[in-house]
Amino acid sequence: MSDQLNDTAIEQQLDFLREIDILKSVIRKSPLIDQSRRENSAEHSWHLAMYALILKDCSDKEINIDRVIKMLLIHDIVEIDAGDHPIHETSDNTAQEEAEQKAAERIFGLLPTSQGEELKAFWYEFETAESNDAVFAKSLDRLQPLIHNVATEGGTWGEGNVSHEQVKQRYGSVISAGSKRIWSLVQKLVSQHFQR
Amino acid sequence: MSDQLNDTAIEQQLDFLREIDILKSVIRKSPLIDQSRRENSAEHSWHLAMYALILKDCSDKEINIDRVIKMLLIHDIVEIDAGDHPIHETSDNTAQEEAEQKAAERIFGLLPTSQGEELKAFWYEFETAESNDAVFAKSLDRLQPLIHNVATEGGTWGEGNVSHEQVKQRYGSVISAGSKRIWSLVQKLVSQHFQR
Repeated sequence: MSDQLNDTAIEQQLDFLREIDILKSVIRKSPLIDQSRRENSAEHSWHLAMYALILKDCSDKEINIDRVIKMLLIHDIVEIDAGDHPIHETSDNTAQEEAEQKAAERIFGLLPTSQGEELKAFWYEFETAESNDAVFAKSLDRLQPLIHNVATEGGTWGEGNVSHEQVKQRYGSVISAGSKRIWSLVQKLVSQHFQR
Repeated sequence: MSDQLNDTAIEQQLDFLREIDILKSVIRKSPLIDQSRRENSAEHSWHLAMYALILKDCSDKEINIDRVIKMLLIHDIVEIDAGDHPIHETSDNTAQEEAEQKAAERIFGLLPTSQGEELKAFWYEFETAESNDAVFAKSLDRLQPLIHNVATEGGTWGEGNVSHEQVKQRYGSVISAGSKRIWSLVQKLVSQHFQR
């Protein structure tokens, strides 16, 4: 990317890096495991990148783990403008998609043009689950809150009166699309939780 | 890694992923840019991985950006046991190094053996700045708090009575070892700050 070689380009990159600091103040539904507070989207993105790094051999399909990690690092940046939308809350999907598209334009638009376009396309690949990499990334994005909910006696499930059947449906389809192996293992945790 | 292919290995991996949730509660000196609170080490690690992704073309030496990103994702995990140690505070370096080594043994030791050893070696490569990848990673780890301090009217520098000369010394050597280009650009920001 030749437009990165001048100072103006680096200044644009630093502007972007300052802007995304705001993701640390976007609060998700999921609790930390010690239940001291809810998780924010920046630390959640770090945790997911670690999930990818650690569980890379669990994908059912061939993936490029470096792409999966990068995708997870950027996947929630649009929430700076568009907010976080928990899976157990009904919402207007079309309006939400439009808000996220607009957010991607603005935020990735802070970068030098070619780099911004590249990251926007990358975010869109995740959003639309267009590749094996995106499918695995999405399965981890669904796995991590499940792990937190089980570890905190139900976490957000209790708040929303979410049933065992709904958990199997809402988490199972996405997690097993990336890794049947992981889903088969964690659905035992889920069953134990709902038996308690 | 063949030991990842059984359920016990995946359970060890999930144990590790639950354990590192604690990094979200390790609080650093640096403020968020909006000054609402101090940054934690998990969101800091996400931010640094983003710094690497965005500024990858600024390294003076040849690097493997995927290794740099992974190194930054894991570089602070030892702080779960050993705590964060700000650069402007004097401390017993030998005791600190021992505590971090012990932390690495325990935390990466939660993983299946070969994976744990691999990550421990990777962390050590960062810690000892043994490669171009580690030198660039360390320069970003020094750059990000500088950007936050400048953006917040001095941030931790004001608290610790840190002088312009000390900033040039403590940040300049590490940042310019990875990217003379970036240091030349940001030292202008630093000078402007101290002129105010």
